[in-house]
Amino acid sequence: MDLAEQLRNIGIENISSSPSQMYCYCTDASQIRGMPECVVRPQNTEQVSDIVKFANDNGIPLVARGAGTGMAGGAVAIKGGIVLDMSGMDRIISVEVENLQVLVEPGVVHSKLNEVLKPHGFFFPPDPGSSEMCTLGGLIGNNGSGMRSVKYGTTRHYVLDLEVVMADGSIIHTGSKTLKSITGYDLTGLMVGSEGTLGIITKALLKIHPLPKARSVMLASFETAEMAGEAVVRTLASGIVPSACEILDSTTIQALKSYDPQLDLSNAGAILLFEVDGTSGAVREGIETIKEVCSSLSFHTKAAEDTAEAERIWSARRMVGAAISRIDPKRTRVYVGEDIGVPIKEIPVMLSHIHKISEESGIPIMIYGHIGDGNLHTGMAIDLLDSAQMETVNKIADRIHRTAIMLGGTVSAEHGIGAARAEYVRMEKGNALDVMSAIKKALDPKGILNPGKMGV
Amino acid sequence: MDLAEQLRNIGIENISSSPSQMYCYCTDASQIRGMPECVVRPQNTEQVSDIVKFANDNGIPLVARGAGTGMAGGAVAIKGGIVLDMSGMDRIISVEVENLQVLVEPGVVHSKLNEVLKPHGFFFPPDPGSSEMCTLGGLIGNNGSGMRSVKYGTTRHYVLDLEVVMADGSIIHTGSKTLKSITGYDLTGLMVGSEGTLGIITKALLKIHPLPKARSVMLASFETAEMAGEAVVRTLASGIVPSACEILDSTTIQALKSYDPQLDLSNAGAILLFEVDGTSGAVREGIETIKEVCSSLSFHTKAAEDTAEAERIWSARRMVGAAISRIDPKRTRVYVGEDIGVPIKEIPVMLSHIHKISEESGIPIMIYGHIGDGNLHTGMAIDLLDSAQMETVNKIADRIHRTAIMLGGTVSAEHGIGAARAEYVRMEKGNALDVMSAIKKALDPKGILNPGKMGV
Repeated sequence: MDLAEQLRNIGIENISSSPSQMYCYCTDASQIRGMPECVVRPQNTEQVSDIVKFANDNGIPLVARGAGTGMAGGAVAIKGGIVLDMSGMDRIISVEVENLQVLVEPGVVHSKLNEVLKPHGFFFPPDPGSSEMCTLGGLIGNNGSGMRSVKYGTTRHYVLDLEVVMADGSIIHTGSKTLKSITGYDLTGLMVGSEGTLGIITKALLKIHPLPKARSVMLASFETAEMAGEAVVRTLASGIVPSACEILDSTTIQALKSYDPQLDLSNAGAILLFEVDGTSGAVREGIETIKEVCSSLSFHTKAAEDTAEAERIWSARRMVGAAISRIDPKRTRVYVGEDIGVPIKEIPVMLSHIHKISEESGIPIMIYGHIGDGNLHTGMAIDLLDSAQMETVNKIADRIHRTAIMLGGTVSAEHGIGAARAEYVRMEKGNALDVMSAIKKALDPKGILNPGKMGV
Repeated sequence: MDLAEQLRNIGIENISSSPSQMYCYCTDASQIRGMPECVVRPQNTEQVSDIVKFANDNGIPLVARGAGTGMAGGAVAIKGGIVLDMSGMDRIISVEVENLQVLVEPGVVHSKLNEVLKPHGFFFPPDPGSSEMCTLGGLIGNNGSGMRSVKYGTTRHYVLDLEVVMADGSIIHTGSKTLKSITGYDLTGLMVGSEGTLGIITKALLKIHPLPKARSVMLASFETAEMAGEAVVRTLASGIVPSACEILDSTTIQALKSYDPQLDLSNAGAILLFEVDGTSGAVREGIETIKEVCSSLSFHTKAAEDTAEAERIWSARRMVGAAISRIDPKRTRVYVGEDIGVPIKEIPVMLSHIHKISEESGIPIMIYGHIGDGNLHTGMAIDLLDSAQMETVNKIADRIHRTAIMLGGTVSAEHGIGAARAEYVRMEKGNALDVMSAIKKALDPKGILNPGKMGV
């Protein structure tokens, strides 16, 4: 009796196991592949609990999946078994503005939540690039963040409580409905970022934040990436906390200019994009202060004169992912070594290391990202059918990861560890990995929850 | 051979075991008592590791202690054994303003860190009332916060990495030197608030924040506590995030006025104290907005006209703890039921429950605290030698705790669970406590680390 049949026998519905459907679930936005035996689409917590209990009783791997936008294979069933497609559990259960919180199911798409919150004058601050597609369950599982984390922090800061189905099928609440509670261990924080290896999230109580009254952006152009790095350090020390602080390196700038020749970007070694939000006075003051701080290092600064101009500047930033195709239209972007973070002071060093790696390997590497918290994204494009090229970028990624760790940094600041970066957890965390594995073993003794991920 | 001698035999120094010294270590700011067999004052991580390993090998309870300012018995050796007095490990090892971080030992006193950071234009935002005494190790162990957490969050948000000695004596690093990393489970967040039950913190890498350029305060007086609660809800929804939002109820106001008749406080049902910080324009706008929002509910608002006046207002707030003695100078304040938190919308309900409990028991209860995140402190004073009174306040505390839980709240928002509130963890957290206990068991199988605390 195959797995789908066994599940049907215990009353589970919405099961697929046809090869064509399994193919749709065999990967995410990474290069990781793994074919599940079947996919189940639960509609509520009790169904999830039944499925997890079945999997645990029978030692069957179980992988929760939202929209599959992950970049590290976190939602890929590399050991086979069951994929739990959580996208059908997509209700926004309640919006409690007075309590500064919303209760959601994990399948809610990120941008949908912010649409619903906008008329209330609120928003959910984490802002992943995949906002239009990714689900909140995936965002929480990966502790995602985005451009505004320099001011607003990561997803972990906005999760008040999670309903979680544990490996044995029991259902717990990790947190509290209050904004501040220290009763017991921080199970909420532990579940956030655990990529479905410790439990399956079935509901999330999220803290929301009032929408800022005003927002403005400015660009500063620098001769070298080092000077841009120095400007970031000085800006953050000036007492202004920008709501975004992004870098575009020279390769990225060239790709953008060739993608859209109308874009008014300097031929700089690096451009910083700053956003400030708050009350209108605070925004004015913030932009002025940043301009002043940058003036001795930058050869050109430009503040957006109105919302439309700010929007044009942001569009350019958002185009980065697509622009890489302009380097060579026959190539496809691959996500490897794309999410490192380093201490702020090490950013110029990291940038020059990546430039060196790019030169030595002959593969152009775009660098952009959330420099305000040390998170740099790299972009490489290859001919996917050329296995030698894939091997080259994997080697590049390995060098990038090792360099980041050497500088006191991390192999993933926001995209996830999954299977793609699992081998680096020991290198980065040392014997703390043993503590993580002990926790994994205690909460999932049979190892059924997303096996093969995160190095645990 | 007694414990002190055994420790000396393995090369440990700085051990005390005289009854008079043990007496100094037998309690904290709570009513919990427990006599250790000896106290050791380690000077570095290796010594801590040696002591922990010895305790683990011999199954001896081990309690880490900073300044003993805790209000729940967290640092009290209720099962005897060894107290590790960490106050001698008090170096500020490095201040790296460019990386927005400092590396400290756990014995550093909170206010000392902010003194050192001030000339750099930075500060460490968590602001416990015990700032002048409490150590950072204790603050981290309890995930302390304070008046400014409504804007800045709790200690957990500012811990980047911890060096921790685990129960087996091994030394791990939980986090990263980068501002954002998602490699592995959030062991940092797990250790923060675990009250020394999972490991002994020997170093902490803390994130620092630029000092705001300006800061101002205002008071708003309300006929009833309910109206004050409504004003808080509207203020938080207005888009302004105050840096403090405190409530003083009528009992607290009367105690303050009798403590210092010069204090210019209205005879109100409740007074809210708001602080706004940021750039000077933002502060002006913030205060104006709050004034406007409160105007239809408050019968009197008053913004501080200068720094001196703001300081006078803050002094009144800080006097609250002492002022309680004015209710009856022969009584001593006891800390029981003093740290609940409820969802913001439930604050007026909680306030009226406490008023009712106070009336029914005949014990005056002051209420004040960080209403902006739902955290209410209560103050009761009794004759400590009268055991009937102690019994009465314990019954009151029990009713307060149960009411908070019933309203979706917590028995401790920032002071700690320790031994004093351990019995409520199951009530508040349900079967999530089993998950906590499984983690405790996995990381400290012999149960030597701070046994009898947190309900695990």
